[in-house]
Amino acid sequence: MFRIALDLMGGDFAPQAISAGAALALKSFPELHLILIGPQKFIQPLLSQPRTEGLFTEEVVLMDDSPGEALKRKRKASIFLGLDLLKSGEAQAFVSAGNSGAVVAGSIFILGRLAGVRRPAIATLLPTLKNPMVLIDAGANVDSKPYDLYQFAVMANLFLETIWGRANPKIALLSIGEEIGKGNQLVKETHKLLSASSLNYYGNIEGRDIFKGDVDIVVCDGFIGNVCLKLSEGLAETIMEMLKNEVKKSYLYLLGMSLAKGAFKSFKKKIDWREYGGAPLLGVKGNVIISHGKSDALAIKNAIKQALHFAKLDLATQLENAIIKHHLEEAGVEE
Amino acid sequence: MFRIALDLMGGDFAPQAISAGAALALKSFPELHLILIGPQKFIQPLLSQPRTEGLFTEEVVLMDDSPGEALKRKRKASIFLGLDLLKSGEAQAFVSAGNSGAVVAGSIFILGRLAGVRRPAIATLLPTLKNPMVLIDAGANVDSKPYDLYQFAVMANLFLETIWGRANPKIALLSIGEEIGKGNQLVKETHKLLSASSLNYYGNIEGRDIFKGDVDIVVCDGFIGNVCLKLSEGLAETIMEMLKNEVKKSYLYLLGMSLAKGAFKSFKKKIDWREYGGAPLLGVKGNVIISHGKSDALAIKNAIKQALHFAKLDLATQLENAIIKHHLEEAGVEE
Repeated sequence: MFRIALDLMGGDFAPQAISAGAALALKSFPELHLILIGPQKFIQPLLSQPRTEGLFTEEVVLMDDSPGEALKRKRKASIFLGLDLLKSGEAQAFVSAGNSGAVVAGSIFILGRLAGVRRPAIATLLPTLKNPMVLIDAGANVDSKPYDLYQFAVMANLFLETIWGRANPKIALLSIGEEIGKGNQLVKETHKLLSASSLNYYGNIEGRDIFKGDVDIVVCDGFIGNVCLKLSEGLAETIMEMLKNEVKKSYLYLLGMSLAKGAFKSFKKKIDWREYGGAPLLGVKGNVIISHGKSDALAIKNAIKQALHFAKLDLATQLENAIIKHHLEEAGVEE
Repeated sequence: MFRIALDLMGGDFAPQAISAGAALALKSFPELHLILIGPQKFIQPLLSQPRTEGLFTEEVVLMDDSPGEALKRKRKASIFLGLDLLKSGEAQAFVSAGNSGAVVAGSIFILGRLAGVRRPAIATLLPTLKNPMVLIDAGANVDSKPYDLYQFAVMANLFLETIWGRANPKIALLSIGEEIGKGNQLVKETHKLLSASSLNYYGNIEGRDIFKGDVDIVVCDGFIGNVCLKLSEGLAETIMEMLKNEVKKSYLYLLGMSLAKGAFKSFKKKIDWREYGGAPLLGVKGNVIISHGKSDALAIKNAIKQALHFAKLDLATQLENAIIKHHLEEAGVEE
């Protein structure tokens, strides 16, 4: 049995979508024990199910609360109580679709960073023409330094090797040209660090090429990573919307599209972020999964599935050991 | 008659695609007089057509040449000779699909910046669910300062008003959250400048929302603008590729798609960057159009069409007057 803590009050469709996702997950995963955190009135109905318990609190971090202020004034909010459960060992992973800034700040403050890690980062899975790849950082930090980006690469590398068994993943640096020397100051300096490292470094990658699937990891600052992530979601939706508008113009098009419906359905499933669960926050002492703010029941169920996976493997501890090993190797120290 | 200079050696498919685009443009635009710049052997065949002349040079800036080095060592390259023609008044606009860094550096060095402009910027048109909008800066600068972003907004504002007649365009700042205070240091400081200005400032916009068409101008640093632009192109291609792969899985899907083909065709035309011509470099003393590196004949024809439009309106001079007026107004000086 694995004990997963779930923030019932996080996300645009909380608490209904979160409750529905919790119910789905309990049905699907027999090894799941769920600790639901939020107001009693929302949690009570779920407690009739086996393998559940409640941690009641009325405090909630809102989506536009400042993370620092929230930590000061709303210490009993569901996000922070969930992290407390991780810290004390009462839960083995924590899932929240709430204010991601508050989850990051809370994780650093309550759990602390892994030894040797300067800044934790959000690792998001993205579909490509080949295998899904990892974009890191998807928004935990803005104004990162070159060494931070280098560490994001190290963490994502270990994450893919440890959790996915993808050996020696190819790591690329997001920039505005493939040639060395193209990019801003941050990219130019990070390039030097990655080139000198033992990582399987591919070089710069342009925005145009990240969905081709030629690399396993794309590294960037969290500001640009977050913009890219949201842009991709928005653009995919817009393209579908524009197509729909064109199809509506003729009965023939409508007929054709209804015949090809199955193709669209399986395509949509492939690019559906809800299928990818949440995004782990790598670099803190605990298994923290940040789910999409627009999470519905399916997204929450998949985020819980991922949390179970991380809990089983004890991702955070494995990552800490691997990071220490990596830094020792880079420093030329034999174990 | 308007005299447009064209770099025959710029872009991945030069000189063939550029020649073909030039021929198309000469056929379509009777008021066009074209000055073709490049090696004589490529230009000679085009000179049999009326309203053409050649400026022969063997020097070419390659796509991966460093702009600064190119300016020093390849001063007779087609890009720089084209800018010389603008400077001397022999041409009224210049089009190149070549090394955009060299076009920007050459424009600053040869033409100079408009009075009061610290950094020129590339303004790119992007399709949205409603009207096309302008993304500025699409890659002329990296590591911009807050005042640069403010000036990009001022220039794009005047550009839309002057050239498109879109009165009082809505200007947004690209960030990772709509709330004030979300973003990196650059965004936070630019936000203050835009808020205090007389511009029609909408506030922050997230990547998710830029294609909805609710704003007319999206302002960002050129590094992130260029990543976003290329990401959008790459993603649109990938989505079409993924759809195609799904459709191939069944004859029924193939039949359906062939019926709906017309819808896809008009959709593709809507999102086709080639239809939008090139992107003007705003803020230099001359009408410079940067066309896509992957330009084919259609893209070049449309870039020349845009160049004609700018030459007719004398965009650069209008922009200079408007910028001076704007700065006087902001300073509270009556004319």
